[in-house]
Amino acid sequence: MEQDERFMREALREAQDAATEGEVPIGAVITCRGRVISRGHNMTERLSDATAHAEMIALTAAMEAQGGKYLKDCTVYVTVEPCPMCAAAMNWAQVGRIVYGAPDPKRGYSLFYPSLLHPKTEVTQRILEEECSRPVTEFFKEKR
Amino acid sequence: MEQDERFMREALREAQDAATEGEVPIGAVITCRGRVISRGHNMTERLSDATAHAEMIALTAAMEAQGGKYLKDCTVYVTVEPCPMCAAAMNWAQVGRIVYGAPDPKRGYSLFYPSLLHPKTEVTQRILEEECSRPVTEFFKEKR
Repeated sequence: MEQDERFMREALREAQDAATEGEVPIGAVITCRGRVISRGHNMTERLSDATAHAEMIALTAAMEAQGGKYLKDCTVYVTVEPCPMCAAAMNWAQVGRIVYGAPDPKRGYSLFYPSLLHPKTEVTQRILEEECSRPVTEFFKEKR
Repeated sequence: MEQDERFMREALREAQDAATEGEVPIGAVITCRGRVISRGHNMTERLSDATAHAEMIALTAAMEAQGGKYLKDCTVYVTVEPCPMCAAAMNWAQVGRIVYGAPDPKRGYSLFYPSLLHPKTEVTQRILEEECSRPVTEFFKEKR
């Protein structure tokens, strides 16, 4: 729990970087055996790439760091519930565990049936929920 | 129909490249106003990246070519029914039309509810179905 909060704060730092760049403020870090092996934040605007979500960037970097396409011993920390694309990507990578901050009742992966995740992936949610949802809420309030 | 077959043959050429490289033989091309703007084939082994599907590679290249993150006027031709990750990626990019060859009754996006695609995306399936499914069937037969 304490470790989850510590790594979620790292993901929040990434979300803050996204905010500074005018991106939807979502951040992710991936850990393996208690160590951060990759980071990512949303870059859809900067890269003009609708697939450049925090998780996709962190996943590709993690697989590069590991030198393998499976992340069974890894945990993905992400500030907001992953979308279906990112959840399905984590399924392909057989991610061991996902920890997310704020649920996304409009676009989250958990809206879909059957589950988009790998059957062995553990999920923990609502870690620093309020701190994780606030930047996104504020971002969209300013946009309007 | 004739044009769909022509572009599907281009996607099949990409699938053949994947086969030559020992990858699951799936290929994709993306067209815009009757012209191919990007290509991709499965590179999960070569890149050690479980997300390096034909469609993801072609999508990122198409957004780069267009200089924008939406592909509303584009058609994605892919030899096999997209997986949930790729379908959701095409949703984010608001792809205008998807044409695929062979259905994938085990891992295809159409198994999931509600639909993973953008509501405005048109879908055409079973174009050169037999030619599109054969390389994949043969690939997995040889693996066993």
